[in-house]
Amino acid sequence: MRERERHILDAAVRVIAEDGVQGLRIGKFAAEARVSTALIYHYFEDRAGVLRHALEYLDLRAAAHIEEAVPADLCPRAALDRMLLVELQSALDVRMHCIAWGELRASAVFAPELRETLRSTTGEWVDHVADVMREVVETAHGSPAPDLTGAAERLTTLVEGLSKRWLSGYCTIERTRELLSGAITAELATI
Amino acid sequence: MRERERHILDAAVRVIAEDGVQGLRIGKFAAEARVSTALIYHYFEDRAGVLRHALEYLDLRAAAHIEEAVPADLCPRAALDRMLLVELQSALDVRMHCIAWGELRASAVFAPELRETLRSTTGEWVDHVADVMREVVETAHGSPAPDLTGAAERLTTLVEGLSKRWLSGYCTIERTRELLSGAITAELATI
Repeated sequence: MRERERHILDAAVRVIAEDGVQGLRIGKFAAEARVSTALIYHYFEDRAGVLRHALEYLDLRAAAHIEEAVPADLCPRAALDRMLLVELQSALDVRMHCIAWGELRASAVFAPELRETLRSTTGEWVDHVADVMREVVETAHGSPAPDLTGAAERLTTLVEGLSKRWLSGYCTIERTRELLSGAITAELATI
Repeated sequence: MRERERHILDAAVRVIAEDGVQGLRIGKFAAEARVSTALIYHYFEDRAGVLRHALEYLDLRAAAHIEEAVPADLCPRAALDRMLLVELQSALDVRMHCIAWGELRASAVFAPELRETLRSTTGEWVDHVADVMREVVETAHGSPAPDLTGAAERLTTLVEGLSKRWLSGYCTIERTRELLSGAITAELATI
Protein backbone atom coordinates (compact mmCIF):
# COMPACT_ATOMS: atom_id res chain seq x y z
CA MET A 1 0.00 0.00 0.00
CA ARG A 2 1.38 3.39 -0.98
CA GLU A 3 2.11 5.97 1.71
CA ARG A 4 -0.50 8.39 0.38
CA GLU A 5 -3.28 5.80 0.32
CA ARG A 6 -2.38 4.74 3.84
CA HIS A 7 -2.46 8.33 5.00
CA ILE A 8 -5.94 8.80 3.48
CA LEU A 9 -7.25 5.56 5.00
CA ASP A 10 -5.91 6.55 8.42
CA ALA A 11 -7.97 9.71 8.10
CA ALA A 12 -11.08 7.69 7.11
CA VAL A 13 -10.71 5.52 10.21
CA ARG A 14 -10.28 8.58 12.43
CA VAL A 15 -13.38 10.25 11.02
CA ILE A 16 -15.49 7.07 11.36
CA ALA A 17 -14.25 6.58 14.92
CA GLU A 18 -15.16 10.17 15.74
CA ASP A 19 -18.54 10.62 14.06
CA GLY A 20 -19.71 7.09 13.28
CA VAL A 21 -20.40 5.75 9.80
CA GLN A 22 -23.61 7.70 9.46
CA GLY A 23 -21.82 10.91 10.37
CA LEU A 24 -19.12 10.36 7.73
CA ARG A 25 -19.06 13.32 5.33
CA ILE A 26 -16.70 13.22 2.36
CA GLY A 27 -15.91 16.91 2.92
CA LYS A 28 -14.76 16.39 6.51
CA PHE A 29 -12.89 13.25 5.52
CA ALA A 30 -11.03 15.10 2.74
CA ALA A 31 -10.17 17.93 5.14
CA GLU A 32 -8.90 15.43 7.74
CA ALA A 33 -6.79 13.70 5.06
CA ARG A 34 -5.68 17.09 3.69
CA VAL A 35 -6.58 16.17 0.13
CA SER A 36 -9.29 17.36 -2.28
CA THR A 37 -12.71 15.71 -2.35
CA ALA A 38 -11.99 15.00 -6.04
CA LEU A 39 -9.05 12.83 -5.01
CA ILE A 40 -11.25 10.96 -2.53
CA TYR A 41 -13.73 10.19 -5.29
CA HIS A 42 -10.87 9.22 -7.61
CA TYR A 43 -9.53 6.70 -5.09
CA PHE A 44 -12.79 5.35 -3.68
CA GLU A 45 -15.49 6.08 -6.28
CA ASP A 46 -18.22 6.73 -3.72
CA ARG A 47 -19.14 6.63 -0.02
CA ALA A 48 -19.63 2.85 -0.08
CA GLY A 49 -16.15 2.53 -1.60
CA VAL A 50 -14.69 4.53 1.30
CA LEU A 51 -16.36 2.21 3.81
CA ARG A 52 -15.24 -0.94 1.98
CA HIS A 53 -11.65 0.25 1.76
CA ALA A 54 -11.70 1.37 5.40
CA LEU A 55 -12.85 -2.12 6.38
CA GLU A 56 -10.09 -3.81 4.37
CA TYR A 57 -7.56 -1.40 5.81
CA LEU A 58 -8.67 -2.11 9.40
CA ASP A 59 -8.34 -5.80 8.66
CA LEU A 60 -4.77 -5.33 7.40
CA ARG A 61 -3.92 -3.24 10.46
CA ALA A 62 -5.39 -5.86 12.80
CA ALA A 63 -3.39 -8.60 11.09
CA ALA A 64 -0.23 -6.48 11.48
CA HIS A 65 -1.03 -5.90 15.17
CA ILE A 66 -1.40 -9.63 15.71
CA GLU A 67 1.85 -10.38 13.90
CA GLU A 68 3.64 -7.81 16.03
CA ALA A 69 2.14 -9.13 19.29
CA VAL A 70 2.84 -12.79 18.58
CA PRO A 71 6.53 -13.67 18.06
CA ALA A 72 7.00 -16.77 15.91
CA ASP A 73 8.70 -18.71 18.74
CA LEU A 74 5.84 -18.32 21.21
CA CYS A 75 4.15 -21.56 22.31
CA PRO A 76 0.68 -22.05 20.72
CA ARG A 77 -1.27 -21.50 23.99
CA ALA A 78 0.41 -18.16 24.66
CA ALA A 79 0.04 -17.20 20.99
CA LEU A 80 -3.72 -17.84 21.17
CA ASP A 81 -4.09 -15.59 24.24
CA ARG A 82 -2.01 -12.83 22.70
CA MET A 83 -3.71 -12.84 19.29
CA LEU A 84 -7.15 -12.45 20.88
CA LEU A 85 -6.25 -10.15 23.77
CA VAL A 86 -4.37 -7.76 21.49
CA GLU A 87 -7.77 -6.53 20.27
CA LEU A 88 -8.79 -5.44 23.77
CA GLN A 89 -6.46 -2.65 24.77
CA SER A 90 -7.07 0.88 25.87
CA ALA A 91 -4.23 2.30 23.70
CA LEU A 92 -5.69 5.15 21.66
CA ASP A 93 -5.13 3.60 18.23
CA VAL A 94 -6.61 0.23 19.27
CA ARG A 95 -9.62 2.04 20.75
CA MET A 96 -10.07 4.00 17.53
CA HIS A 97 -9.83 0.86 15.41
CA CYS A 98 -12.34 -0.91 17.68
CA ILE A 99 -14.86 1.91 17.37
CA ALA A 100 -14.46 2.07 13.59
CA TRP A 101 -14.72 -1.72 13.20
CA GLY A 102 -17.84 -1.83 15.39
CA GLU A 103 -19.37 1.01 13.39
CA LEU A 104 -18.71 -0.75 10.09
CA ARG A 105 -20.15 -4.03 11.42
CA ALA A 106 -23.22 -2.15 12.72
CA SER A 107 -23.75 -0.27 9.48
CA ALA A 108 -23.70 -3.51 7.46
CA VAL A 109 -27.08 -4.20 9.07
CA PHE A 110 -28.45 -1.32 7.00
CA ALA A 111 -25.97 -1.37 4.07
CA PRO A 112 -25.86 -4.77 2.34
CA GLU A 113 -23.05 -3.59 0.03
CA LEU A 114 -20.61 -3.82 2.95
CA ARG A 115 -21.47 -7.41 3.79
CA GLU A 116 -19.25 -9.24 1.31
CA THR A 117 -16.09 -7.51 2.52
CA LEU A 118 -17.14 -7.94 6.13
CA ARG A 119 -17.83 -11.62 5.57
CA SER A 120 -14.46 -12.34 4.00
CA THR A 121 -12.42 -10.35 6.55
CA THR A 122 -14.31 -11.96 9.46
CA GLY A 123 -13.91 -15.39 7.86
CA GLU A 124 -10.14 -14.97 7.61
CA TRP A 125 -9.94 -13.92 11.25
CA VAL A 126 -12.01 -16.92 12.34
CA ASP A 127 -9.81 -19.28 10.27
CA HIS A 128 -6.65 -17.83 11.76
CA VAL A 129 -7.93 -18.28 15.33
CA ALA A 130 -9.12 -21.83 14.51
CA ASP A 131 -5.65 -22.68 13.11
CA VAL A 132 -3.89 -21.54 16.28
CA MET A 133 -6.45 -23.38 18.46
CA ARG A 134 -5.75 -26.52 16.45
CA GLU A 135 -2.02 -26.16 17.18
CA VAL A 136 -2.79 -25.72 20.89
CA VAL A 137 -4.95 -28.83 20.99
CA GLU A 138 -2.64 -30.99 18.89
CA THR A 139 0.40 -29.95 20.93
CA ALA A 140 -1.41 -30.79 24.18
CA HIS A 141 -3.13 -34.01 23.11
CA GLY A 142 -0.70 -35.29 20.47
CA SER A 143 -3.61 -36.29 18.22
CA PRO A 144 -5.58 -34.54 15.45
CA ALA A 145 -7.98 -31.87 16.77
CA PRO A 146 -11.69 -31.89 15.88
CA ASP A 147 -13.15 -29.03 13.81
CA LEU A 148 -12.62 -25.86 15.83
CA THR A 149 -14.45 -23.36 13.61
CA GLY A 150 -17.35 -23.04 16.06
CA ALA A 151 -15.05 -22.30 19.00
CA ALA A 152 -13.14 -19.74 16.92
CA GLU A 153 -16.41 -18.11 15.82
CA ARG A 154 -17.48 -17.82 19.45
CA LEU A 155 -14.18 -16.34 20.63
CA THR A 156 -14.01 -13.75 17.85
CA THR A 157 -17.68 -12.84 18.37
CA LEU A 158 -16.95 -12.42 22.05
CA VAL A 159 -14.05 -10.07 21.26
CA GLU A 160 -16.44 -7.90 19.22
CA GLY A 161 -19.16 -7.98 21.88
CA LEU A 162 -16.75 -7.24 24.73
CA SER A 163 -15.18 -4.33 22.92
CA LYS A 164 -18.68 -2.88 22.42
CA ARG A 165 -19.48 -3.25 26.13
CA TRP A 166 -16.23 -1.53 27.02
CA LEU A 167 -16.71 1.29 24.51
CA SER A 168 -20.29 1.86 25.63
CA GLY A 169 -19.10 2.24 29.23
CA TYR A 170 -20.47 -1.01 30.69
CA CYS A 171 -17.15 -2.36 31.94
CA THR A 172 -13.45 -1.65 32.11
CA ILE A 173 -10.94 -2.88 29.53
CA GLU A 174 -9.33 -5.01 32.27
CA ARG A 175 -12.65 -6.75 32.88
CA THR A 176 -13.07 -7.52 29.16
CA ARG A 177 -9.61 -9.09 29.10
CA GLU A 178 -10.38 -11.17 32.18
CA LEU A 179 -13.67 -12.36 30.64
CA LEU A 180 -12.00 -13.22 27.34
CA SER A 181 -9.24 -15.19 29.08
CA GLY A 182 -11.94 -17.15 30.92
CA ALA A 183 -13.66 -17.95 27.63
CA ILE A 184 -10.44 -19.20 26.01
CA THR A 185 -9.87 -21.48 28.99
CA ALA A 186 -13.48 -22.74 28.92
CA GLU A 187 -13.37 -23.45 25.17
CA LEU A 188 -10.09 -25.35 25.40
CA ALA A 189 -11.25 -27.32 28.44
CA THR A 190 -14.25 -28.76 26.58
CA ILE A 191 -12.38 -29.99 23.48
CA MET B 1 -47.49 1.39 30.97
CA ARG B 2 -50.46 3.07 29.31
CA GLU B 3 -51.60 1.88 25.90
CA ARG B 4 -50.80 5.19 24.25
CA GLU B 5 -47.23 5.31 25.59
CA ARG B 6 -46.70 1.75 24.50
CA HIS B 7 -47.98 2.53 21.02
CA ILE B 8 -45.58 5.49 20.76
CA LEU B 9 -42.62 3.45 21.99
CA ASP B 10 -43.41 0.68 19.51
CA ALA B 11 -43.15 3.33 16.80
CA ALA B 12 -39.81 4.54 18.19
CA VAL B 13 -38.40 1.02 18.08
CA ARG B 14 -39.65 0.55 14.49
CA VAL B 15 -38.06 3.80 13.33
CA ILE B 16 -34.74 3.03 15.06
CA ALA B 17 -34.73 -0.48 13.57
CA GLU B 18 -35.39 0.97 10.13
CA ASP B 19 -33.08 3.98 9.99
CA GLY B 20 -30.67 3.48 12.88
CA VAL B 21 -30.29 5.83 15.84
CA GLN B 22 -28.47 8.45 13.80
CA GLY B 23 -31.26 8.42 11.22
CA LEU B 24 -33.95 8.96 13.88
CA ARG B 25 -35.92 12.13 13.08
CA ILE B 26 -38.60 13.28 15.53
CA GLY B 27 -40.84 14.20 12.56
CA LYS B 28 -40.73 10.72 11.06
CA PHE B 29 -41.14 9.15 14.49
CA ALA B 30 -44.24 11.28 15.21
CA ALA B 31 -45.70 10.36 11.80
CA GLU B 32 -45.04 6.66 12.44
CA ALA B 33 -46.71 6.94 15.87
CA ARG B 34 -49.52 9.07 14.38
CA VAL B 35 -49.16 11.74 17.01
CA SER B 36 -47.95 15.35 16.93
CA THR B 37 -44.28 16.22 17.40
CA ALA B 38 -45.45 18.36 20.34
CA LEU B 39 -46.74 15.24 22.08
CA ILE B 40 -43.42 13.49 21.47
CA TYR B 41 -41.57 16.37 23.14
CA HIS B 42 -44.14 16.38 25.95
CA TYR B 43 -43.55 12.68 26.66
CA PHE B 44 -39.81 12.47 26.09
CA GLU B 45 -38.44 16.00 26.46
CA ASP B 46 -35.78 15.60 23.76
CA ARG B 47 -34.07 13.16 21.39
CA ALA B 48 -31.95 11.69 24.19
CA GLY B 49 -35.15 11.11 26.16
CA VAL B 50 -36.62 9.16 23.24
CA LEU B 51 -33.54 6.94 23.11
CA ARG B 52 -33.51 6.36 26.86
CA HIS B 53 -37.18 5.44 26.94
CA ALA B 54 -36.79 3.21 23.88
CA LEU B 55 -33.99 1.38 25.67
CA GLU B 56 -36.08 0.88 28.82
CA TYR B 57 -39.00 -0.26 26.72
CA LEU B 58 -36.88 -2.81 24.84
CA ASP B 59 -35.66 -4.10 28.17
CA LEU B 60 -39.25 -4.54 29.42
CA ARG B 61 -40.21 -6.30 26.19
CA ALA B 62 -37.19 -8.62 26.42
CA ALA B 63 -38.08 -9.50 30.02
CA ALA B 64 -41.66 -10.23 28.91
CA HIS B 65 -40.36 -12.42 26.05
CA ILE B 66 -38.22 -14.39 28.48
CA GLU B 67 -41.10 -14.83 30.92
CA GLU B 68 -43.30 -16.07 28.08
CA ALA B 69 -40.67 -18.48 26.79
CA VAL B 70 -39.78 -19.96 30.17
CA PRO B 71 -42.66 -21.64 32.03
CA ALA B 72 -42.17 -21.66 35.80
CA ASP B 73 -42.08 -25.47 35.96
CA LEU B 74 -39.21 -25.88 33.49
CA CYS B 75 -36.02 -27.43 34.90
CA PRO B 76 -33.21 -24.87 35.42
CA ARG B 77 -31.01 -26.23 32.58
CA ALA B 78 -33.82 -25.96 30.02
CA ALA B 79 -34.79 -22.55 31.40
CA LEU B 80 -31.23 -21.29 30.90
CA ASP B 81 -31.20 -22.43 27.26
CA ARG B 82 -34.59 -20.91 26.57
CA MET B 83 -33.95 -17.55 28.21
CA LEU B 84 -30.79 -17.02 26.16
CA LEU B 85 -31.92 -18.57 22.87
CA VAL B 86 -35.16 -16.58 22.87
CA GLU B 87 -33.08 -13.55 21.85
CA LEU B 88 -31.87 -15.26 18.68
CA GLN B 89 -34.91 -15.77 16.51
CA SER B 90 -35.73 -14.71 12.99
CA ALA B 91 -39.32 -13.68 13.90
CA LEU B 92 -39.83 -10.15 12.61
CA ASP B 93 -40.42 -8.51 16.01
CA VAL B 94 -37.37 -10.19 17.60
CA ARG B 95 -35.27 -9.13 14.61
CA MET B 96 -36.54 -5.56 14.94
CA HIS B 97 -35.81 -5.49 18.67
CA CYS B 98 -32.31 -6.91 18.06
CA ILE B 99 -31.52 -4.22 15.50
CA ALA B 100 -32.82 -1.45 17.76
CA TRP B 101 -30.96 -2.78 20.83
CA GLY B 102 -27.72 -3.09 18.83
CA GLU B 103 -28.16 0.44 17.52
CA LEU B 104 -28.71 1.85 21.01
CA ARG B 105 -25.67 -0.03 22.36
CA ALA B 106 -23.58 1.24 19.42
CA SER B 107 -24.74 4.81 19.82
CA ALA B 108 -23.80 4.82 23.51
CA VAL B 109 -20.19 4.80 22.26
CA PHE B 110 -20.82 8.34 21.00
CA ALA B 111 -23.61 9.41 23.39
CA PRO B 112 -22.56 9.11 27.06
CA GLU B 113 -26.08 10.17 28.20
CA LEU B 114 -27.37 6.72 27.21
CA ARG B 115 -24.80 4.81 29.23
CA GLU B 116 -26.45 4.86 32.64
CA THR B 117 -29.69 3.30 31.34
CA LEU B 118 -27.74 0.82 29.25
CA ARG B 119 -25.60 -0.12 32.22
CA SER B 120 -28.56 -0.80 34.51
CA THR B 121 -30.60 -2.75 31.92
CA THR B 122 -27.56 -4.84 30.97
CA GLY B 123 -26.73 -5.39 34.64
CA GLU B 124 -30.22 -6.72 35.36
CA TRP B 125 -30.01 -9.09 32.40
CA VAL B 126 -26.60 -10.37 33.56
CA ASP B 127 -27.91 -10.88 37.12
CA HIS B 128 -30.93 -12.78 35.86
CA VAL B 129 -28.78 -15.13 33.76
CA ALA B 130 -26.35 -15.60 36.66
CA ASP B 131 -29.27 -16.50 38.97
CA VAL B 132 -30.55 -19.20 36.62
CA MET B 133 -27.01 -20.54 36.10
CA ARG B 134 -26.66 -20.78 39.87
CA GLU B 135 -29.84 -22.87 40.05
CA VAL B 136 -28.50 -25.13 37.28
CA VAL B 137 -25.21 -25.67 39.09
CA GLU B 138 -26.73 -26.13 42.56
CA THR B 139 -29.34 -28.56 41.23
CA ALA B 140 -26.65 -30.60 39.48
CA HIS B 141 -23.95 -30.53 42.18
CA GLY B 142 -26.09 -30.18 45.31
CA SER B 143 -23.67 -27.61 46.75
CA PRO B 144 -23.42 -23.80 46.61
CA ALA B 145 -22.24 -22.49 43.23
CA PRO B 146 -19.25 -20.14 42.91
CA ASP B 147 -19.78 -16.58 41.64
CA LEU B 148 -21.19 -16.90 38.12
CA THR B 149 -21.30 -13.22 37.12
CA GLY B 150 -18.37 -13.63 34.72
CA ALA B 151 -19.98 -16.57 32.92
CA ALA B 152 -23.27 -14.64 32.68
CA GLU B 153 -21.46 -11.58 31.34
CA ARG B 154 -19.81 -13.73 28.66
CA LEU B 155 -23.03 -15.45 27.61
CA THR B 156 -25.01 -12.20 27.35
CA THR B 157 -22.15 -10.52 25.48
CA LEU B 158 -22.10 -13.47 23.11
CA VAL B 159 -25.84 -13.08 22.49
CA GLU B 160 -25.25 -9.46 21.49
CA GLY B 161 -22.26 -10.28 19.30
CA LEU B 162 -24.00 -13.21 17.60
CA SER B 163 -27.09 -11.20 16.82
CA LYS B 164 -24.87 -8.55 15.21
CA ARG B 165 -23.14 -11.20 13.07
CA TRP B 166 -26.49 -12.54 11.99
CA LEU B 167 -27.96 -9.12 11.24
CA SER B 168 -24.87 -8.08 9.28
CA GLY B 169 -25.20 -11.18 7.11
CA TYR B 170 -22.22 -13.18 8.38
CA CYS B 171 -24.15 -16.26 9.43
CA THR B 172 -27.63 -17.73 9.68
CA ILE B 173 -29.82 -17.48 12.75
CA GLU B 174 -29.59 -21.29 13.11
CA ARG B 175 -25.81 -21.03 13.27
CA THR B 176 -25.97 -18.37 16.00
CA ARG B 177 -28.26 -20.62 18.06
CA GLU B 178 -25.91 -23.58 17.60
CA LEU B 179 -22.92 -21.47 18.66
CA LEU B 180 -24.72 -20.11 21.71
CA SER B 181 -25.80 -23.59 22.80
CA GLY B 182 -22.17 -24.68 22.54
CA ALA B 183 -21.10 -21.76 24.73
CA ILE B 184 -23.69 -22.58 27.42
CA THR B 185 -22.44 -26.16 27.50
CA ALA B 186 -18.80 -25.05 27.65
CA GLU B 187 -19.44 -22.56 30.47
CA LEU B 188 -21.34 -25.10 32.57
CA ALA B 189 -18.74 -27.81 31.95
CA THR B 190 -15.96 -25.69 33.45
CA ILE B 191 -17.73 -24.75 36.70
